[in-house]
Amino acid sequence: MLSEAGYLVLNKIYEPIQGDLAKVGEDMKALCNVDIPWLTEMLTYTLSGVGKMIRPALVLLSGNFYKYNRNSLWPMATAVELMHNATLVHDDAIDKSSVRRGKSTINNVWGGEKAVLLGDFLFARAGEFATDTGNLEVVRLFTQTLSTISSGELIQTFNAYNLNQSKEDYIERIACKTASLFCLATKTGAILGQAPRRSVQILNDYGYNLGIAFQIMDDILDFIGAEEELGKPMGSDLSQGTLTLPAMLLMERYSDGNPVIKIFRNEDKNKNIPLAIDMIRNSSIVEECFMEAADYCARARCKLNELPDIEARQSLAELTDYIIKRKN
Amino acid sequence: MLSEAGYLVLNKIYEPIQGDLAKVGEDMKALCNVDIPWLTEMLTYTLSGVGKMIRPALVLLSGNFYKYNRNSLWPMATAVELMHNATLVHDDAIDKSSVRRGKSTINNVWGGEKAVLLGDFLFARAGEFATDTGNLEVVRLFTQTLSTISSGELIQTFNAYNLNQSKEDYIERIACKTASLFCLATKTGAILGQAPRRSVQILNDYGYNLGIAFQIMDDILDFIGAEEELGKPMGSDLSQGTLTLPAMLLMERYSDGNPVIKIFRNEDKNKNIPLAIDMIRNSSIVEECFMEAADYCARARCKLNELPDIEARQSLAELTDYIIKRKN
Repeated sequence: MLSEAGYLVLNKIYEPIQGDLAKVGEDMKALCNVDIPWLTEMLTYTLSGVGKMIRPALVLLSGNFYKYNRNSLWPMATAVELMHNATLVHDDAIDKSSVRRGKSTINNVWGGEKAVLLGDFLFARAGEFATDTGNLEVVRLFTQTLSTISSGELIQTFNAYNLNQSKEDYIERIACKTASLFCLATKTGAILGQAPRRSVQILNDYGYNLGIAFQIMDDILDFIGAEEELGKPMGSDLSQGTLTLPAMLLMERYSDGNPVIKIFRNEDKNKNIPLAIDMIRNSSIVEECFMEAADYCARARCKLNELPDIEARQSLAELTDYIIKRKN
Repeated sequence: MLSEAGYLVLNKIYEPIQGDLAKVGEDMKALCNVDIPWLTEMLTYTLSGVGKMIRPALVLLSGNFYKYNRNSLWPMATAVELMHNATLVHDDAIDKSSVRRGKSTINNVWGGEKAVLLGDFLFARAGEFATDTGNLEVVRLFTQTLSTISSGELIQTFNAYNLNQSKEDYIERIACKTASLFCLATKTGAILGQAPRRSVQILNDYGYNLGIAFQIMDDILDFIGAEEELGKPMGSDLSQGTLTLPAMLLMERYSDGNPVIKIFRNEDKNKNIPLAIDMIRNSSIVEECFMEAADYCARARCKLNELPDIEARQSLAELTDYIIKRKN
């Protein structure tokens, strides 16, 4: 669901690693060809939708600063993209979502049971690619990140329809479920690129801040995005009982008679979800959330100053701009 | 749901590795203590039910023949048991099963969504333990096995309610979904125990044959076991549309008006499942399936002759007897 303009911007950002990113795409295509026809079909369906490829790009860009070692960076880039896709497949199955990237979800086409198993298969294949790096530290980070993501998703599920959540809870939750994978991408890229420890930490912190900003933007877009650009219905977080930053701020403004309260009490969702969307769109909340995301992007960008001034650094800097300007 | 007699037999078999197996149990208990109370509760609930611990025992016994290295065998033993538990959690969520090991399933207590995420978390923790072995070859086998298991489960799901399956299809399916984890246990145990390549292959083949026998027995017990010993309802494979060896043989005997055909056409399951169970119990089918399992056990046992004659070899041999005599 990436617009042409979005493509052009990303293509420009990805310039220093274009060939290697294409190789990741080829690896993903190649792994769809298994000797079980219906599994090939499911894999092709899942992995052929062109995503933004931000996470594999982060691996490759982060690996660019010292000793660029494409033979270990390629598999890691593929591993993070596969892990990302696996989490999406499970998320959609759990949320019973029917549309993703403008396409019917796996659970919608093949049922939730097969979606769970396909997600497991993708996690496993991601793990195999991670081991192809030949670096145990990287493999360990990979498995730890999967623990973090799944516990983050569990936290979200346990807090569904819970109005009593602080902004700190929100940041902690999105740090687990989203930023952790961005960190994994940048940190393992740095490790495999033989960055000194200080630079590994810098790229880890860059990844964290970028990841938080990315998720805040995602949560804003759930209220203000155009459905055809988002590739999924608006207000889906609210309808799942997930309290995100915009809804939290709306709760702060109107503690009584707030549509969010009604939605979470399952009172007339059809009326209250559009009402909450309208109230958020017609307030300063969107701007405040943007500012929050922009703050995290600024922090991410700031981290980069200490790194060698190479083309990849410029790309990472431009990625922070892309994140807050993106429409899907 | 292990009977006291079953316990005594297994305890005797596990004698050469008793202390190390206890350490695996402690590691499993320790990993339940996370700083999120409800996650601790879910983990404790899942991992506290005492299973047979066959898979971790296989790692430890297989690691006993040459250079016993408990520091790498412990984490691998824990990894396979965690992977086993993760697959059970996902299987139950997919099958919407309500009872396992005589206890309400995770999906029954917390819902299918949380069960999927808990399974993901357990896979990830299993992966972390696998990396603790410090052996990349072992980690690679671990991830490959997870691919194999999930594709095996997918094959089973795609073939649900399909009457047109051969015995070869059945063996291939249970090789993927069950025997692969037995192989992983014995093969990685051998590798970590610095066995020469020939012995690694022997222990791999032992694991394969034992695993196939184990699953055939499981599939027999689904028809002849006492529910209180099984810890789950009888005939559950048929009610899920899973065609196992006993049902296949029943189909061969009575191609017309067979209750299995009716069950798979969703015709009066309440009558036809008990009827199929009765027909299988009152025929030579059970004995034939036993013979098949016994054959695989004999092959497993035969493999052992080439290995050094140590106490662990005797245990592995006795395990083949236990497998065909077990009641749950």
